[in-house]
Parts: sequence; structure tokens; C-alpha cells
Amino acid sequence: MSTLPVAVDAMGGDHAPERNIAAAVAAASEGANVLLVGDPDRLGDDHGLPVHPASEVIPMDADPATAVRRYKDSSVVRCAELVRDGVASSMLSAGNTGAAMASSLLRMGRIKGIARPAIAIPFPVDGRHPCVLLDCGANAECQPEWLVQFGQMGAVYSRVRFGIDQPRVGVLTIGEEAGKGNSLVKETVALMEAGGWEDACGAVYGGNIEGRDLMVDVAEVAVCDGFTGNVVLKSLEGGVGSALDRIRAAMQATPEAAAAAAILEPYLDPVFDVLDVNNTGSALLLGVRGVSMISHGSSSVHALTRGIHTAESMVAEGIVEQLRDIVGS
Amino acid sequence: MSTLPVAVDAMGGDHAPERNIAAAVAAASEGANVLLVGDPDRLGDDHGLPVHPASEVIPMDADPATAVRRYKDSSVVRCAELVRDGVASSMLSAGNTGAAMASSLLRMGRIKGIARPAIAIPFPVDGRHPCVLLDCGANAECQPEWLVQFGQMGAVYSRVRFGIDQPRVGVLTIGEEAGKGNSLVKETVALMEAGGWEDACGAVYGGNIEGRDLMVDVAEVAVCDGFTGNVVLKSLEGGVGSALDRIRAAMQATPEAAAAAAILEPYLDPVFDVLDVNNTGSALLLGVRGVSMISHGSSSVHALTRGIHTAESMVAEGIVEQLRDIVGS
Repeated sequence: MSTLPVAVDAMGGDHAPERNIAAAVAAASEGANVLLVGDPDRLGDDHGLPVHPASEVIPMDADPATAVRRYKDSSVVRCAELVRDGVASSMLSAGNTGAAMASSLLRMGRIKGIARPAIAIPFPVDGRHPCVLLDCGANAECQPEWLVQFGQMGAVYSRVRFGIDQPRVGVLTIGEEAGKGNSLVKETVALMEAGGWEDACGAVYGGNIEGRDLMVDVAEVAVCDGFTGNVVLKSLEGGVGSALDRIRAAMQATPEAAAAAAILEPYLDPVFDVLDVNNTGSALLLGVRGVSMISHGSSSVHALTRGIHTAESMVAEGIVEQLRDIVGS
Repeated sequence: MSTLPVAVDAMGGDHAPERNIAAAVAAASEGANVLLVGDPDRLGDDHGLPVHPASEVIPMDADPATAVRRYKDSSVVRCAELVRDGVASSMLSAGNTGAAMASSLLRMGRIKGIARPAIAIPFPVDGRHPCVLLDCGANAECQPEWLVQFGQMGAVYSRVRFGIDQPRVGVLTIGEEAGKGNSLVKETVALMEAGGWEDACGAVYGGNIEGRDLMVDVAEVAVCDGFTGNVVLKSLEGGVGSALDRIRAAMQATPEAAAAAAILEPYLDPVFDVLDVNNTGSALLLGVRGVSMISHGSSSVHALTRGIHTAESMVAEGIVEQLRDIVGS
């Protein structure tokens, strides 16, 4: 295949460039076409992958909007430019999330007719397809019309990525009954109930859903403003992470416990793998003119490798074109 | 001691009245003074506890404000009246949360000078005192001044309940850096940074905190609007619950796994106990003129028993008087 490569921001993340390189090598060995973007001196050439040079790195704590203007030769900005210029098919960054978002938006641009891009993250659901939550942080304050469009984009993503034909789109709020929530939710629910938005994207309106429904089989897509979504995301990551830490520690409390834990390892490791935030796949920024995957700074090599494969498959499925044709104008 | 009894809404909750009675009996056997409130015919008298009659029950899904007006002889409304009238020291309900809140607010009234009551919930922190999050759902839309006052009330609660002398009060938002968040958060942070609010309540301003910080040792109090707090609460309950379910299921997957799991039981049960939402203590509605504990509908007998003891201890510590003197006007 002569597909374009995934541009991997080799310098972004808590364990860059080592993990980024390892993930790129692993993905390449599994058939992915990968282009590393970063400082050639720091990346070396043992990996055997092509490198696109970028001399700067946006610090993890830099202000995104100003950083994109200031670090013009940064690895993440260059990644977005490679997608814009048709040199790369897509990009993945585990660096400063805001900077990855701002680079993608400023360099690739929005899909025409899409008011605001949104960060979509699949939450694991036991025995079912994940529930995609959006917006997980691109827009701290939202208009009701944007949330309806997030629902459309989430429905397209749910179908393209997880094969769901009629994804149920719910509005994340604080009670199942109609009329519950803040004014943004109430106005969004009114727009969703009025209908018409679901036809083209193949969604089914799923009504109000609560936080406790995110990880059970209630809806395939949940929409909320980016403030709420980001707080929920971080709370779940922290809360589930803290629960797993406690359980793991208790299982090593004595030699007797550790011996029993060793027997359980093959049963529990797959569960921990699904639940551990450092192993989860990457977020996808929906609504920009390119596939932009955003990974945790602490991502494992495995998670980054998965993210590269997801980027390739989203390009192959034409997610951007589908969003343009179905949701855009 | 001649303390007044805790009025227990015997009819509210998914397993009422059986669990409520069992919890009341258990708490009484441990020294608590308990008054059951509900339908005497349904409660019987095997329990040996005093009963205050109430002929109605507010359904779990009824609209709170109208239900309190309509079901004037409901168990939860009668509980709040018993506190107002000085017959009970405090109340506990596992029924319709909104109705418990509305009954408390409408019958007991607000503490003078407190703009809005807030639901305070302690989140478990490994090896440390819990982090109290408020508001967990009393006010879907908030003003920045209310959030500052939630911080003051949370600080008093943290000191009175958990003995924290200088609780760190943080603002829940979507980034650690100043300037992150929605407009409510930004205005709240400006007020908190201006200072003056911490002196009387003994708090220390803890800056921005993220969702992932709630269950680690970063702050003793976190404030947010009731929409965000309720979504976070439900998400954490659902997410941690789903994680525990998966882990428990994997540990019973084969006889070999189950045998190892049996060895681990004494190590893991205390951890599951802390993390299981049905075992957690009750929420406290801060800012009304009485101690009103609100429990999950699905609470275990153990959790309800704890809630009754917490109600008694909050009365003994004078939480309402302290909130009045320190935060009220």
C-alpha cells in the first residue's frame, strides 16, 4: 500500500522520545507506516524509521495558544503541518494536550460547518462497545447547538470506529428525568428532542444519562461541555487508578497474599489492562481537517502503538470525509 | 445521656423499610438514640424502637419540590419537621435525594447568611483523611460567591468531622495552571485568591485541583457547582463500581481463580469496603438549620448504621452552630 505515514510527535510525553520511538517501531513492525517528527540528534537512527526534523519541544505546562505561535519548529506543530500539507495521513502526540489541540486546529483548520472541534474518548463498557464521551476538554464553555453537533460527530465516530449502526446519543446530566440539569443541558435536550439532527448521522436519541451510566450499556455516545467532560475524565482516571493501586497493594501485603495474587495474574491482567489509563487508546480530536490522535503523557508503549494503528484505521475509513459529508456543510 | 434521637426515614430507599430498620436497630444497640419515622403498620414493633407515624412515602422518581408540597405526611417531610420542632436532633434518609434536600431546606430553613446549602461528600483517600467535595448536587447552577462559601462550609466540616486543622480548599477545574476553567471557576479563583474568606474557617487556599486529585492527597476540600459535582460523584461511583465488578468476576472465572481469591478475601474485603459506594457513609447537607444526612437508596445496612452514628456525632460536635457562627452572618 502506498498510504501516507502517521506523523508521530517523537518529543511529546513524559517518557519521550524513548517510548514514542518504541511505539513507532512496534507499530511499523506490525505494518504501520510511521514518520517520526523531532530532533534528529536526539532520535538517533537505530530505529530505522524516517525522521522529519523539528528542533523545538513545547513544554508540558506551556500555554497552548501562545506556545503554538512561539514554538513554530516544535515537533507537534510540524506534525500538524505535515498532515495539512499532505505529507502525513494523520498525527499522534502524547505531549501537551492543549498544544496538540491548538496545533491541529490552527494548522489543519476546522471542517466547514462544524462549529467547534471536540475531544472524543471511548470509555470501556463491560462486554460491550465503549461509550464515546465528548467533549472531553476542547471547549470549556459551550452552546447547546455545539452539543447537538458533538452528538452527530460522536455518532459517526461510533459507527466508523466501533461499527455501531444506530448509536444511542445521550446528554450527560444529573438525573434521568426530563428537566434535570443546568441551562445548557436543558436547552440541548430541547434541541435534541425536537429531532432532525439524527437522520443523516444515523443516531438514536438516548435521552438524559448520568455519570454512572458511562461505563455500562446505556448509550454509545454521551455529550457534554468540555469542562464537565474533562473533569469527569480526570476523575475517572484518578478514581479508578486509585482503586487499582489499593487493590494491587493489598494483593502484595504478605507472602501468602502475593502467592495467591500470582495465581490470579492471568485472570486479572486483562482487566487491569482495560482499566489502566496508561494503557487506554488515544483521544481523537473530531472536527478538524485531519486525523489527530491525542495520547496521555504517561501512555505505555502499548497504548501509543494502539494509537498509531487507530490513526491509520481512521484514515482508511475516511472519518474526516464522513464528518465533512454528514455533519459539515 | 438525654440527647434527642436521630429521626430515621424508615420508608425511603431501595430496600425500605427492612434495611432501615436493621440499621436503626444496629445503631441503637451501639448506643445511638433512634426514632423510626414511617407507617407503623409496615414497621411493626419487633424492632423495639419508638416510631413516629407518617402515612405517605415520596416515590424515588418524584419531582422533589412538588413532592414535598404534595406528600405532607410523608416520612421524609416528617423527619425534617421533627428536627425543626426540636423533637429529633437530626435526620437520615435513603429515599429520593432531591426530596430529602427539599424537605430539609423547606422545613428547617437556611442558616442566616448562607446563600445556598450544599451537599458535601467525603471521597476516600488512601492513607489520609477523605477529600470533601461540595456541592454534589444541591445547586445545578452557581454563583462564584456561593462556591467561596462552599469552601468555608467544607473547611468547617473537614475540621469538625475529620479533625483537619488547616484544610486545603481547592477549586475543581480542568488544569492546574491559573486561568484554566470556565467563567464560574475563573471568577471563583479570583475571589479565593483575593483572600479574607479563609481566616475564620481556618482554611488554606489550595488553588486549582483536577478530577484526578480528588482521591489522592492534594486537598481536604474541593468546591464546584452542583452539576459538575453530581456528575463527578455519579461517574466515580459508576466507574469504580464497574471496575470492582470486573475484578470480582475475573477472580471467580475458574475454580483455580476462586480458590486464590478466597485466600485474598481478608486482604481485599477492607479495600472493597472502602471503595464500594453502597458501603460509603452518607452525604451531609451543609447550610440548613439541622443535621440532615442523605444516603444512597442502595445503601447497605452497615452504611446506614454509620450514617446514623455520623448524624449523632455531628450534632454532638455542634456542626450547625459552628457553621452559623463561622460562615453565617
